[in-house]
Amino acid sequence: MKDRIAHQTFLDRIMTAQEAAALIRNKDVIATSGFTGAGYPKAVPEALAQRIEAAHAAGEPFTVRLLTGASTGPQLDGALARANAVAFRSPYNGDTAMRARINEGSTLYLDTHLGQVAQKVRQGQFGKPDVAIIEAVAVTPDGQVILSSSVGNSPTWVQITDKIIVEVNTWQNPELAGIHDIWGGVQMPPNGQIIPLLHPGDRIGNGTLAIDLNRLVAVVVTDEPDRNAPFAEPDTTARQIAGHVMEFFAHEVKQGRLPPSLLPLQSGVGNIANAVLEGLNESHFENLTGFSEVIQDGMLSMLESGRMTVASASSFSLSPEAAQRINHQAAFFRQKIVLRQQEVSNSPELIRRLGIIAMNGMIEADIYGNVNSTCVMGSRIQNGIGGSGDFARNAFLSMFVSPSTAKGGKISAFVPMVPHTDHILQDVQIIVSEQGLADLRGLAPVERARAIIDKCAHPDFRPHLQDYFEQAKRYGFGQHIPHHLPAALAWHQRYMETGSMLG
Amino acid sequence: MKDRIAHQTFLDRIMTAQEAAALIRNKDVIATSGFTGAGYPKAVPEALAQRIEAAHAAGEPFTVRLLTGASTGPQLDGALARANAVAFRSPYNGDTAMRARINEGSTLYLDTHLGQVAQKVRQGQFGKPDVAIIEAVAVTPDGQVILSSSVGNSPTWVQITDKIIVEVNTWQNPELAGIHDIWGGVQMPPNGQIIPLLHPGDRIGNGTLAIDLNRLVAVVVTDEPDRNAPFAEPDTTARQIAGHVMEFFAHEVKQGRLPPSLLPLQSGVGNIANAVLEGLNESHFENLTGFSEVIQDGMLSMLESGRMTVASASSFSLSPEAAQRINHQAAFFRQKIVLRQQEVSNSPELIRRLGIIAMNGMIEADIYGNVNSTCVMGSRIQNGIGGSGDFARNAFLSMFVSPSTAKGGKISAFVPMVPHTDHILQDVQIIVSEQGLADLRGLAPVERARAIIDKCAHPDFRPHLQDYFEQAKRYGFGQHIPHHLPAALAWHQRYMETGSMLG
Repeated sequence: MKDRIAHQTFLDRIMTAQEAAALIRNKDVIATSGFTGAGYPKAVPEALAQRIEAAHAAGEPFTVRLLTGASTGPQLDGALARANAVAFRSPYNGDTAMRARINEGSTLYLDTHLGQVAQKVRQGQFGKPDVAIIEAVAVTPDGQVILSSSVGNSPTWVQITDKIIVEVNTWQNPELAGIHDIWGGVQMPPNGQIIPLLHPGDRIGNGTLAIDLNRLVAVVVTDEPDRNAPFAEPDTTARQIAGHVMEFFAHEVKQGRLPPSLLPLQSGVGNIANAVLEGLNESHFENLTGFSEVIQDGMLSMLESGRMTVASASSFSLSPEAAQRINHQAAFFRQKIVLRQQEVSNSPELIRRLGIIAMNGMIEADIYGNVNSTCVMGSRIQNGIGGSGDFARNAFLSMFVSPSTAKGGKISAFVPMVPHTDHILQDVQIIVSEQGLADLRGLAPVERARAIIDKCAHPDFRPHLQDYFEQAKRYGFGQHIPHHLPAALAWHQRYMETGSMLG
Repeated sequence: MKDRIAHQTFLDRIMTAQEAAALIRNKDVIATSGFTGAGYPKAVPEALAQRIEAAHAAGEPFTVRLLTGASTGPQLDGALARANAVAFRSPYNGDTAMRARINEGSTLYLDTHLGQVAQKVRQGQFGKPDVAIIEAVAVTPDGQVILSSSVGNSPTWVQITDKIIVEVNTWQNPELAGIHDIWGGVQMPPNGQIIPLLHPGDRIGNGTLAIDLNRLVAVVVTDEPDRNAPFAEPDTTARQIAGHVMEFFAHEVKQGRLPPSLLPLQSGVGNIANAVLEGLNESHFENLTGFSEVIQDGMLSMLESGRMTVASASSFSLSPEAAQRINHQAAFFRQKIVLRQQEVSNSPELIRRLGIIAMNGMIEADIYGNVNSTCVMGSRIQNGIGGSGDFARNAFLSMFVSPSTAKGGKISAFVPMVPHTDHILQDVQIIVSEQGLADLRGLAPVERARAIIDKCAHPDFRPHLQDYFEQAKRYGFGQHIPHHLPAALAWHQRYMETGSMLG
């Protein structure tokens, strides 16, 4: 163990996950590492879930409030949700069991812009976190922590909690050391500082995380991989979407509106995003860069092929196979990748300065291009807004991608009005489905409607959208953004009643 | 005239407004100075409107596309709207005649975040502007322009247009010289630069605006004030809202969540915002600062009283009386005020770094605190989103204020669902009506609903909102943000049909 934990205090505090979990009290605010299912603590949350289940079985109340970087995995969100242990969850969740708790109303969920979490917590908006649980790959001889496959909000958590628990995960390659860049310049207003970053690969901080040893209450050793889920091979729809995006990029470069090596790329998580990245890897573009919140398989392939020179993010979100590649070639990848805390990776300041090309998925868009990324039928949370708001609003180009239909053609991704808005029309410049690409830049709302209906909607729904648009212009209270309110949400109501948006 | 125009080329290019307007062609993109009714050109737009009216009377087509800083006045938006001369308008309008053109569908309007206009135009999103028309107060001996009561997008307009027309307005005091700060560091990505500003009063640029004399095609001399509209004396409702805000600030300082001199204040335009500022001027807070897009009467009073030490903005929006005060004490105010281009005054980078307290008005909020700032009944534009999105998303505290009812109690400012979203719930932290203040920080959606209904809604509407909320929880597709879609927009439909949201 001394090769991983090279500091005596850490060695002295080693205990079992059960012993560490016993340090957590009812109603504690727990702040953990973890971002897009990477680098989250695994053993202590599972032990905590068992402890809470036992308490509940004994008729004792026991819940925690849970803050993370972003999504975690079954050992954390999953285990605690199954134990019905979480009273409040923020800022982002991707776990099925936790999602069910939120949507049944037993866990309160505050979906939060990922770039803003740390400052809001420092402001006291989420209550004072009591316990930090941080995954690391190693501890240096001077007692600093080398984080694992994400940075997330860990630098903030270890600063503000009274108790710090560190999980040292021996599954991760300790050669990840050097991949992290933790900026120490964070200050609260009125003392806010410039983030001195001009290029995606700039290193502006430290590779290790300092921890106050007086507050280190437990060290737990683990040995298991992240949640890492396989990506599906891109299907025809994903390939068509990627094709439209490639064509668009080529056109923009030809018009002189983008440099030949494009601009730093941000890409959301998922199969379509990955297909776009794979498309770029097979393209003629060179010297690409990434400035994103997450690095997934597609970006890894581009770094390996040399198509991309450097990628900056807060975490990985990898297939099991790609996670093995990172682990086996950590020394290569740590030269090409910088992992930052999420208030840097998702900073509006940097997104605007660097001129990011943002590509994110969505649930649906309305005919004017307002986007719902989170709430099915307006009410049921899918995952969360994540960093899409940080990026879409401040990007040089803001693209949203989606298949034109879901549920075997019964749901249209293009609807008269979205029952929940995450991205207002001003922040949605390009929409792409397998049907085509709608370039909405410079268009007024009614022009946007024509472009979205004609270019992106599925042919089965297109005439119905046109009907709605005509109706809206006839009955609308104004012609700026015409709507016919009695019909605006009828598609969603019909789906809930009949299982199909089609009449 | 030589005291105002101290450069021969400018003197040589003096002509009548009619002669200058003759240089503008059908379908030109016109880019003018002007922000919140201040510093907009007056004579050339009026002459252009006459020319276009004559063309239309002769059966000739003639329209222009109009870009500005933000709102202008009757001589610009008003005159061109009456002539039905504007095919496309962006980024913001406050003029009644232009609003009518937009809502009848004869002028297309692209409502745009004010901090993003300049970059979007440089990206080519609005077409290439042909003619810049810029109001100035004077020209220096080396041929640089001293802008008047706003900066807006003028630095960008004079860089990218082939023809520049300068209106020198002798009504404005030439001692405004020195009040402006035009940052020269704007670069397009991938060469984006740090905006080196750490405090609201920092000067980071030049006081004058350089112009390429080869593109200077006309100079027109005018002598008239800005649109300057009087503020109403704060009524009971406005005073109650201001009272709740004062109490909140005092509480936050006491809790250590705000420094004793608060943080830089941003305030939207209008009587309620002005009442809040007047309330601050009568408070015990000291050494306040302003970092806003506009300086209105209330901030001016605070600078005069010494309650506020410095205010940064892109323009003035003053009563006629306050405009006279500025004019008579220009030498005093130019020490206390910095006017910046709007991509600096509204920069997300600076708003986040400085930790702004943002206070903006709204049309309505839904029970979850999504805000509609722009579109009455979802369709009819009021003014535009302006800078409210720039500030609300990046602010340290984001507040929205509104009376709880409008139209004599027939419209509730708190509704089941907003038919148009400008500010998503994540960007709305505090809502204030005359009924009270809802502190939504850290609350999940259903907790937000209880707070908004209980604290902000008018008693006449409160039980109906409670009914909707109960219904939504019963029928909602999920309990995260419960909605009952068939009833969600019924209040708006009822208003359109009966003139009242009440049943």
